[in-house]
Amino acid sequence: MLMEDVHFSFPAVAPRQVGRKALAVNLSDIAAMAGRPLAAAVSVALPRHRGMEFAQEIHAGLQQLAEEYGVVVAGGDTNSWNGPLVISVTLLGETSAKGAVLRSGARVGDWVLVTGTLGGSLAGKHLAFHPRVEEALALHDAANLHAMIDISDGLSSDLGHILDESRVGARLRADSIPVSDAALAADDDKSPLEHAISDGEDFELLFTASPEDGRRLLDRSPIDVPISHIGEIVAQAGCTIEDANGACRTLPRSGWVHGIGAPVAE
Amino acid sequence: MLMEDVHFSFPAVAPRQVGRKALAVNLSDIAAMAGRPLAAAVSVALPRHRGMEFAQEIHAGLQQLAEEYGVVVAGGDTNSWNGPLVISVTLLGETSAKGAVLRSGARVGDWVLVTGTLGGSLAGKHLAFHPRVEEALALHDAANLHAMIDISDGLSSDLGHILDESRVGARLRADSIPVSDAALAADDDKSPLEHAISDGEDFELLFTASPEDGRRLLDRSPIDVPISHIGEIVAQAGCTIEDANGACRTLPRSGWVHGIGAPVAE
Repeated sequence: MLMEDVHFSFPAVAPRQVGRKALAVNLSDIAAMAGRPLAAAVSVALPRHRGMEFAQEIHAGLQQLAEEYGVVVAGGDTNSWNGPLVISVTLLGETSAKGAVLRSGARVGDWVLVTGTLGGSLAGKHLAFHPRVEEALALHDAANLHAMIDISDGLSSDLGHILDESRVGARLRADSIPVSDAALAADDDKSPLEHAISDGEDFELLFTASPEDGRRLLDRSPIDVPISHIGEIVAQAGCTIEDANGACRTLPRSGWVHGIGAPVAE
Repeated sequence: MLMEDVHFSFPAVAPRQVGRKALAVNLSDIAAMAGRPLAAAVSVALPRHRGMEFAQEIHAGLQQLAEEYGVVVAGGDTNSWNGPLVISVTLLGETSAKGAVLRSGARVGDWVLVTGTLGGSLAGKHLAFHPRVEEALALHDAANLHAMIDISDGLSSDLGHILDESRVGARLRADSIPVSDAALAADDDKSPLEHAISDGEDFELLFTASPEDGRRLLDRSPIDVPISHIGEIVAQAGCTIEDANGACRTLPRSGWVHGIGAPVAE
């Protein structure tokens, strides 16, 4: 459910982008389990004062992405009111023959891998990202993925979900984390690495697999998006991150430890 | 999708009633096709100022009805904001072995039948109605239902949907329409019959079947709720209604013709 002035605001964002994103975040959730999306129910509360063209733009953005991903909009509910825009999408999918990949399957010794590059998504990517549906299916077909999630809250936070549900810990290497150009370009108090670790809305795939499968995916990748090996699953709970000098620190859920990446004054 | 101050208002309605109704209207939609409900996705935008107990009441109302009807709340999304309450439910179901009953199957000569009594729902029933899921399955099992819909907009309006999609017309008898006690008790400018024909939110089943099946359902009803035979499907488009004196008038979609039932000054 996306809500005006909570998840987006006009006119900074176009109605077509909102319609697209409302479906895209759901597609990313299906991708996170290596599922195949099928049909969507779309319910909207349309602000009456914005008129018909606005409603058509919302629909156009959603419908275009639905067609790209072979999703049928099969139902829903259209309402208007004097309140802000609310759009709620329920997306149905099916698992592939290998079944769904859950958050709970990570094993000690697994490699931790991630697609694409991370950080700075709110500068634009979050409105135009390509949900990793085909990539997840191809990875799942080429290897036995033990656990997977899409990065919506941020690397450290979403990895935390895998660790909790798998009852394991992880050790990451700071210089293996793929930092996006948007994170490098960000001009604020956070370092690029900090953006990559703590920003949300990357909608990349974060997954674990055996070292053998991880190695095979890196050597003969079945997808066009880069894959990075960023660490390992360990028995001890929690997540630690090792910097280029070998210093190791605990990575909190909120995502950041002062002193890793660019130092930030405390 | 139910929206505060559009579909309900506080404090006239309790949050528990809103949670219940958000699922109930979806159960009624599944009943309308003689389907069996299975699983729900529930998304909410909760007004922050109303606090946690309010949210728990919404959930309790919905969850209690879900348990009564054997529905699993399988997913959804919980948000809070400074706006009004919005609750969106997607309900999944399956058809019985005989398949779904559509709006498009009415045939010339069919009887038009309705469950329960009609009118005055907004006086209270609309918050506490029992979706006719079991009744629809039992009727569908006992007879070949040709077309069915639940009465959410009102008898004349919802019958109109069946007539349009089946490309037929109907002739109703005014004195066969089951008027509810709430419609009889209504103290306003509309007659009880007018309430029964034009009020919405009865959530009863309106369906058609062959005269033989209709007769059998009346003689040996498979359900506890009364069934009324209110008219027939005819070839000519539109809907006419015959009063006790044999006078016949066109029944508009909006539901009412002056002069049928209690006369209303024009």
